[in-house]
Amino acid sequence: MIPPLAAASAAQDALVALFVVLLAAKLGEELCRRTGQPAILGEIVAGVAVGPSVLGLVSPTEILEVFSELGVVFLLFVVGLETRLSDMRAVGGPAVRVGVLGVVIPFAAGFGLGELLGDGLNTSLFLGAALMATSAGITSAVLIDLGVGDRRAARTILGAAVVDDVLALVLLSVVVGIAEGGGVSITGVAGLLLIAVVFIGVIAVGGSKLLERYPHGLQVFAFSHNGLLPAVLLLLGLAALAGEIGLAAIIGAFLAGMIVAETSHHSDVEDDVKPLSDFFPPFFFAYIGLQVDLGALADVGTLGLLLAVTVLAVASKLIGSWLATPRMARGDRALIAVGMVPRGEVGIIVAGIGATAGVIDGELFAVIVGMAVLTTVIAPPVLRRLTAAPAGAPTPQIQTG
Amino acid sequence: MIPPLAAASAAQDALVALFVVLLAAKLGEELCRRTGQPAILGEIVAGVAVGPSVLGLVSPTEILEVFSELGVVFLLFVVGLETRLSDMRAVGGPAVRVGVLGVVIPFAAGFGLGELLGDGLNTSLFLGAALMATSAGITSAVLIDLGVGDRRAARTILGAAVVDDVLALVLLSVVVGIAEGGGVSITGVAGLLLIAVVFIGVIAVGGSKLLERYPHGLQVFAFSHNGLLPAVLLLLGLAALAGEIGLAAIIGAFLAGMIVAETSHHSDVEDDVKPLSDFFPPFFFAYIGLQVDLGALADVGTLGLLLAVTVLAVASKLIGSWLATPRMARGDRALIAVGMVPRGEVGIIVAGIGATAGVIDGELFAVIVGMAVLTTVIAPPVLRRLTAAPAGAPTPQIQTG
Repeated sequence: MIPPLAAASAAQDALVALFVVLLAAKLGEELCRRTGQPAILGEIVAGVAVGPSVLGLVSPTEILEVFSELGVVFLLFVVGLETRLSDMRAVGGPAVRVGVLGVVIPFAAGFGLGELLGDGLNTSLFLGAALMATSAGITSAVLIDLGVGDRRAARTILGAAVVDDVLALVLLSVVVGIAEGGGVSITGVAGLLLIAVVFIGVIAVGGSKLLERYPHGLQVFAFSHNGLLPAVLLLLGLAALAGEIGLAAIIGAFLAGMIVAETSHHSDVEDDVKPLSDFFPPFFFAYIGLQVDLGALADVGTLGLLLAVTVLAVASKLIGSWLATPRMARGDRALIAVGMVPRGEVGIIVAGIGATAGVIDGELFAVIVGMAVLTTVIAPPVLRRLTAAPAGAPTPQIQTG
Repeated sequence: MIPPLAAASAAQDALVALFVVLLAAKLGEELCRRTGQPAILGEIVAGVAVGPSVLGLVSPTEILEVFSELGVVFLLFVVGLETRLSDMRAVGGPAVRVGVLGVVIPFAAGFGLGELLGDGLNTSLFLGAALMATSAGITSAVLIDLGVGDRRAARTILGAAVVDDVLALVLLSVVVGIAEGGGVSITGVAGLLLIAVVFIGVIAVGGSKLLERYPHGLQVFAFSHNGLLPAVLLLLGLAALAGEIGLAAIIGAFLAGMIVAETSHHSDVEDDVKPLSDFFPPFFFAYIGLQVDLGALADVGTLGLLLAVTVLAVASKLIGSWLATPRMARGDRALIAVGMVPRGEVGIIVAGIGATAGVIDGELFAVIVGMAVLTTVIAPPVLRRLTAAPAGAPTPQIQTG
């Protein structure tokens, strides 16, 4: 007998995959919480476990990619909700410096390593690009988890991560332009940079000012008799718009959060969005794990390369951030430098583009994904030590998901 | 210059589509509320408007299909949350009779029409199958919208819709078996029916009894420090399981809701799940609209066929339900009969399977989708009149989404 509803099997397969991934992520998270590890580590490892490398229950499909994207979008929206424009302005200078040096130095390091390995100009460019961007999603999840999300250093990290994402995307388009053989025009690069700055400036400052003046402004689209769906629509709309103009969707999501934070019913929105921001983000972290190919790493040479790339990724980001904050207190400097270390989705996306273009081979792709996971795993314990109260008081634990 | 993040464009396209569909659905809903129409009508029409037939902004993709499936799954979960096992037992007899006659008579009517049109045995079988199943999702959304979800007649409709879905799925597998030329074994059919009854019996009665005895039982998987994710995991798990054994995922979702309804922190779960059950269902209704092909209906002969199929669908369901409830009060009989009229996703899925098998052509597919929309549009105004308080007091309006 033919299984009924065969035509609906795409949705059925997706339902099974979503269930398996969410269950595994939550089990992994719980295990990590009980053993004092960061929750997101458990979600990433759960993705590795159910993925093609180990149990083979789930593959990274387009559906899961969309859920992963919504995960990081909701994550950055919540971070934006906790961020006031005035806070961001207060850390503007250092954030821009950390962002710029934290992109340029890792890019140069990755490019240099590629040239040393003799893999050709294009591969070197992509390796540099894959090392450059801090994962704003991972970093902010870790900072919230440690209960230090509202410290000045944490704000600086977040601002720097946004600057860093913008620069990384501009640099990425340059790299892609060179790799495609089309060359790169200075006006094109300047144009993209201008669009990014104008978009962020207009949306963040304009939107926030508007809602400061009309605190019930969002209720213009009060379709749903509560604050939730207008906020979700703003979030999806700005994320989609940011993506359409060539920026990362998470920048739009972060700005949407900052705008909603200026409204009078701010805390209602936070409560209402919470189930959505509990539901989606585990897919983001698990999806990173799903893309890990342990098989490709089971080789001494590859493991050596992974180690080299990871050390370079950590060291170059530490140096860039450190150099960018000469006038800060030592503790804050260290916190910012370590906080910028985690790579993540941007590095993997860069590697994916390179793989599609035939410039990054299977081994290097596995190495870059592995580097993203390792930098994410290394940072939290160090951050925890750095943020521990000097008197030895226990760090407050705030749950993220 | 190449657009950056080209590799992430699947997720970006999905983000744009999700935003457009959600915005259109919410605008359509608001328009309908202001003009006294049922909210779901606005969401369906919005789907037609942004879909390929009119504006062409969005096509029915696999991603949207998954969001639509999650929409109806969350809808039925919420309906299950409002349903106590004792309520369902109280309406068991009439619900089974309404479900059985409400499937058999429309099937016979559709089959008869197909034979009259001379489209061949297989086409007749699929036309019958497409007419048989009431949409539990649409019906319950309408009943909640009218504020009569807790009336005995409403419970009967809901119970009947579940029975109806089970029978429809069994009949569908018979039809597919015949159409594929493989014939149908009586043991195969009996086996599927047995699996359905055992699944529903064990999960509903067993799960509810278990949680009645251990009201904190769900906290065994208390991963998330609140009641939400265990409930969402139970929901996704049972929906996926129901789909895997050949039942509709919504039956699993409904049972998950009934089980959670027996727990001690029942109302917390309702509050926590609300943002998710606000977010997903609009995609379900809009997706029905997205599948409407107005172009295929722009033909007098096709419009005539649509009219004939719709009249037949309405009349056969009314007759079936009416015959099944001889001992009930006239008002309840009428309410149940009209409440069973809306078809929806099941009819469209049947038509989709038929289309894939080459048994349903483009015209008939458009007619069946059109019939699903029309039966959904016709029922709510009649139900509103039937449920209006005799003294002429205004019907209480409860918001659904």
